[in-house]
Amino acid sequence: MNKLKQLTLLAGTVGAAALALTQPALAQEAEAAIDYAVSGVPIESYYIFNTFAFLISGFLVMWMAAGFAMLESGLVRTKNTAAICLKNIALYSVAGIMYYLIGYYMMYGGMNSFFGGFSLLYNPGDAELAMLDGEGLPAYLEGNSYSVMSDWFFQMVFVATAASIVSGTIAERVKFWPFMIFVVVLTGVLYPIQGSWTWGGGWLTEMGFSDFAGSTIVHSVGGWAALTGAIIIGARKGKYNADGTVNAMPGANLPLATLGTFILWLGWFGFNGGSQLALGSAADAAWMAIVYTNTNLAAAGGVVAAIIVSQIVFKKIDLTMALNGAIAGLVSITAGPDLTNHLLSIIIGAIGGAIIVFSVPLLDKLKIDDVVGAVSAHLVAGIWGTLAVGIVGGGNLVVQVIGIVSVGAFMIVTSGIVWYVLKVTMGLRVSEEAEEMGLDKAELGMEAYPEFGYGSQKI
Amino acid sequence: MNKLKQLTLLAGTVGAAALALTQPALAQEAEAAIDYAVSGVPIESYYIFNTFAFLISGFLVMWMAAGFAMLESGLVRTKNTAAICLKNIALYSVAGIMYYLIGYYMMYGGMNSFFGGFSLLYNPGDAELAMLDGEGLPAYLEGNSYSVMSDWFFQMVFVATAASIVSGTIAERVKFWPFMIFVVVLTGVLYPIQGSWTWGGGWLTEMGFSDFAGSTIVHSVGGWAALTGAIIIGARKGKYNADGTVNAMPGANLPLATLGTFILWLGWFGFNGGSQLALGSAADAAWMAIVYTNTNLAAAGGVVAAIIVSQIVFKKIDLTMALNGAIAGLVSITAGPDLTNHLLSIIIGAIGGAIIVFSVPLLDKLKIDDVVGAVSAHLVAGIWGTLAVGIVGGGNLVVQVIGIVSVGAFMIVTSGIVWYVLKVTMGLRVSEEAEEMGLDKAELGMEAYPEFGYGSQKI
Amino acid sequence: MNKLKQLTLLAGTVGAAALALTQPALAQEAEAAIDYAVSGVPIESYYIFNTFAFLISGFLVMWMAAGFAMLESGLVRTKNTAAICLKNIALYSVAGIMYYLIGYYMMYGGMNSFFGGFSLLYNPGDAELAMLDGEGLPAYLEGNSYSVMSDWFFQMVFVATAASIVSGTIAERVKFWPFMIFVVVLTGVLYPIQGSWTWGGGWLTEMGFSDFAGSTIVHSVGGWAALTGAIIIGARKGKYNADGTVNAMPGANLPLATLGTFILWLGWFGFNGGSQLALGSAADAAWMAIVYTNTNLAAAGGVVAAIIVSQIVFKKIDLTMALNGAIAGLVSITAGPDLTNHLLSIIIGAIGGAIIVFSVPLLDKLKIDDVVGAVSAHLVAGIWGTLAVGIVGGGNLVVQVIGIVSVGAFMIVTSGIVWYVLKVTMGLRVSEEAEEMGLDKAELGMEAYPEFGYGSQKI
Repeated sequence: MNKLKQLTLLAGTVGAAALALTQPALAQEAEAAIDYAVSGVPIESYYIFNTFAFLISGFLVMWMAAGFAMLESGLVRTKNTAAICLKNIALYSVAGIMYYLIGYYMMYGGMNSFFGGFSLLYNPGDAELAMLDGEGLPAYLEGNSYSVMSDWFFQMVFVATAASIVSGTIAERVKFWPFMIFVVVLTGVLYPIQGSWTWGGGWLTEMGFSDFAGSTIVHSVGGWAALTGAIIIGARKGKYNADGTVNAMPGANLPLATLGTFILWLGWFGFNGGSQLALGSAADAAWMAIVYTNTNLAAAGGVVAAIIVSQIVFKKIDLTMALNGAIAGLVSITAGPDLTNHLLSIIIGAIGGAIIVFSVPLLDKLKIDDVVGAVSAHLVAGIWGTLAVGIVGGGNLVVQVIGIVSVGAFMIVTSGIVWYVLKVTMGLRVSEEAEEMGLDKAELGMEAYPEFGYGSQKI
Repeated sequence: MNKLKQLTLLAGTVGAAALALTQPALAQEAEAAIDYAVSGVPIESYYIFNTFAFLISGFLVMWMAAGFAMLESGLVRTKNTAAICLKNIALYSVAGIMYYLIGYYMMYGGMNSFFGGFSLLYNPGDAELAMLDGEGLPAYLEGNSYSVMSDWFFQMVFVATAASIVSGTIAERVKFWPFMIFVVVLTGVLYPIQGSWTWGGGWLTEMGFSDFAGSTIVHSVGGWAALTGAIIIGARKGKYNADGTVNAMPGANLPLATLGTFILWLGWFGFNGGSQLALGSAADAAWMAIVYTNTNLAAAGGVVAAIIVSQIVFKKIDLTMALNGAIAGLVSITAGPDLTNHLLSIIIGAIGGAIIVFSVPLLDKLKIDDVVGAVSAHLVAGIWGTLAVGIVGGGNLVVQVIGIVSVGAFMIVTSGIVWYVLKVTMGLRVSEEAEEMGLDKAELGMEAYPEFGYGSQKI
Repeated sequence: MNKLKQLTLLAGTVGAAALALTQPALAQEAEAAIDYAVSGVPIESYYIFNTFAFLISGFLVMWMAAGFAMLESGLVRTKNTAAICLKNIALYSVAGIMYYLIGYYMMYGGMNSFFGGFSLLYNPGDAELAMLDGEGLPAYLEGNSYSVMSDWFFQMVFVATAASIVSGTIAERVKFWPFMIFVVVLTGVLYPIQGSWTWGGGWLTEMGFSDFAGSTIVHSVGGWAALTGAIIIGARKGKYNADGTVNAMPGANLPLATLGTFILWLGWFGFNGGSQLALGSAADAAWMAIVYTNTNLAAAGGVVAAIIVSQIVFKKIDLTMALNGAIAGLVSITAGPDLTNHLLSIIIGAIGGAIIVFSVPLLDKLKIDDVVGAVSAHLVAGIWGTLAVGIVGGGNLVVQVIGIVSVGAFMIVTSGIVWYVLKVTMGLRVSEEAEEMGLDKAELGMEAYPEFGYGSQKI
């Protein structure tokens, strides 16, 4: 009797069990037949619910790739817009391929607690193929509560998210091909290795580190890679003056940036909600609803806090702060969106939204040039969200800090090495002329908005 | 034996019942165990279907917030684009927070028939928390056919829709902070009170008023608040000439407005389809499919009618009329999207789409300045759709009129008071200079499209 | 005993069967009662899963209409942008109405193998209406495994896709009303007739032609109609010089084109995944996950191949090639997205993406003016994808060729006749002055971006 079967005595699952009270022999037969899952849901329905939840959550997270593309398109200058679009669709593509080739298995293969495993290509296994051929369904269902490729699809869109974070920060000066090589390494190796520590059941999970949907594992990882890259590549030409003042290089298309933020917000329901990893019981469904609620309220808290704090600090309401406030709120709740007191989510999100109002100018003071504010919204808020689980979410604060620091140290060192090697070999940065001209003309030979005349503000 | 159990004799649910025919004692045990829902769906699956339908429908409706943001961004002038983006993301955030703090309970708390109830914060109750802890699932499932927060999430996105309607009409001259205070009152108090009359089981429901997904309760409510606001705030400077002629102030970015309309159309499948409020039986699923079909066909009818009528009346095909035709078609079918003769939906939507071709210029004649046409598309079409239920949808026409008038009177009076108080205290309108300069520079200190030179048409 | 019942002896479905081993009389009663579907899913849950999958997949495909609108808006010139937006929302509307009026029944009515059937209007039948009234659920569930209107909704969005393909190719010079008449014929008659050959169970299905989600039936059909139209209408004024050189007429808004591509990519999960046509068994769910995976990987392969091949051939990375590479990858896998070796999907998509890098300039050499590259991405890649099923997907290559050629011949002849009749009666093409001025001003009397000054590149 395997674990699934042992659990069938839960209420609602006990058609067979009830019979057993009166007619043992009959019940023995029936138990083998009416094969309920761990919940009161028939085992095959259970499998379908779980699989379908992965697919729906997955397509929502996939949609976040469009969100990053629009956010970044809106926040770069016109002359670099086509280039950032190309980087975004290319990095999403590469992330999927690399995660298929080696990444997924490296993260979830379970070889040891520091490194999941290694295997080329990830396809359905023999039991699943047999089931698809109509063989061995009962045994298959006892061993599998979802389709393997539905989980692959869901996890794959997460690695793409991590890569999307990087492209925004180092936009407007990084060369296309070296950046793509970085994405290959990040999505095929770096992300999976650190992911295996927690979600692959490795040493951080053993220690009790808690990161529900990836404040640290996805958002901070992208943020660390972005931060390291921004430092090694350097700031955009003309961004910082010798006297310490900063030249604003405002985004060219704020409605697109707004659209991108709404897309991210929508996709985040899949990101956090899908991280329940199951829909096959009433509890799973109720948890998913709780996660949706907290996700929405944290984002709302982030927006409101960013607007109010901007008004107080800068005496202005600010659209880009509000957008980054939404993202920071979302990132903040991602480590622990399973709070049953939703007021806490508003507060956690609001703190995340407030932090970035200070974090964005602080980075400028440090002359770290983050084009879209991704380091603030994903890394800083990701750290806050991971800590918050240790404060109000039932996690151990010390272990949360260990997780944050370990993942951070790993990402700083490894992505630093990769950026550095790319810098000294291929070169990471376009020429000064190309940067001046814009990457669209220099690298792609095209313009994003070829017919629009440019006004006096063009930089 | 509660109501759920009494209904378990439906076909497909009667494993236990069939046994009862031959072995009464055994069947008694089994009935307690195989606990089917009102449909032939096991009770826990029933709960999951219903909950998941709320979540999916909810994220579709949430997406409508992006639709309104894009529609309005596309239909205002460039100088007010960042401001309208900020208002949209802020109002969506505030709506969620207010509906959590007091709105949802006020609407569905059920204190009496004129006012749902009052309670601060809306969190999962003890029975649900116990279930999530693994206790008392059978009793919980008998008392709850969906997760409470999934319903909260679904209803919350509706109140945000009502608020979104307002921002478009009074764009380009309303101040940010007074507008946000209006949103606080609308989403926390006004919308929930009138909503309790029908969806909260209050006096309009008792009377037989029928509004499936909110032609009146959501769209007209937003429309009334917008109309009242437009009258109290006044028209944009330069919109109407002394001789009665109108200066066109065309939208700056029509592809964005088109995108916004498509987003709304997509979201409306959740809006209307999710308002079936259940997916746990074959009938629920079939009704949801019927609602999807009618929703799509009514929108299609609205588009085609708006284009044809525009061609006849203005001798021109017109994109913004087509877009508003789609929205009017959608609003028109929202009160009764459960028609089983789908031809009626095309007709209802087409009438909605045709009406706005006359309604939009009529408002201009009355010097009511509705920047995006929301009063026509949401209020006028909402009234038509609510009446249509009394004509072909099985509703009582007199009661439908009573519902329309009651909600209208309530909203005119209450939102009128709120707008007026804001006007005489904080002031509702930016200064003439700020309006001339544009809200983006005046209120936000930024531009939506800072690099694009502006042509001769800039107003 | 009908077919569904005969299949109830599958594992997991055999509560009754197991009982039969010990107590034949009791089991006979129980078998009638516990009415499991073909899978181990209770029959009413089975119906809900299938219906819900159609609705979710359907709204994803509906979203593709927005994708085409944005892609085409981004790839035309500013002066034709409002017109292409109008065409896209109008064609989606007309497609739905025509498919309701006659198209769906013509495709699936099953009169004979060359022509499905003819019947006006498509509404739920008597059995479904009775079920919705609470009558005859068991009999209804045995005869219906999904709601009829959920299937209508899903199939309807496919015909809209075919029409969307056409609008892009012949943009910037076709008149609005003749184009809409073409759409009426295409969606009401041409698409359904050829669709009946395969998906309506007609002669191509009998022969063994395999087209899972419509590389040929949807994408090539749109592509053939577009190609025929482009030839009959002729190239845009000034596109081709007498000396054989080509004047680039670059798209005006590349971030919108990027957004459109991401929308299509997202919608394609519904397009291909929903074409599993069921979700009611573990195998259905697992197949759907496999289809999602292949769809994503083929698109990714298309992007990467298009970028690399562009770099090699043109010495440039190219955004529009990458976008069309994604679409070509998606179209290529659409005929056979049920491969269990996902590496094949990457390869099939990559070949599709590589092909269009050669196909796009080839069409220009032939002076066939395809504004957005739709003939390459949908027709050429559609042929490749259909062939690929005969090469690695288990199909018969000869039969695949027969299917491609038959559908192609039918579409060339019939759409050629329609285009020709429209040309000699109403005229297909706007006047030279109108084309010069742009369709927005000439046909709609409006501008898509009225405030933006236009630079020197304006053509």
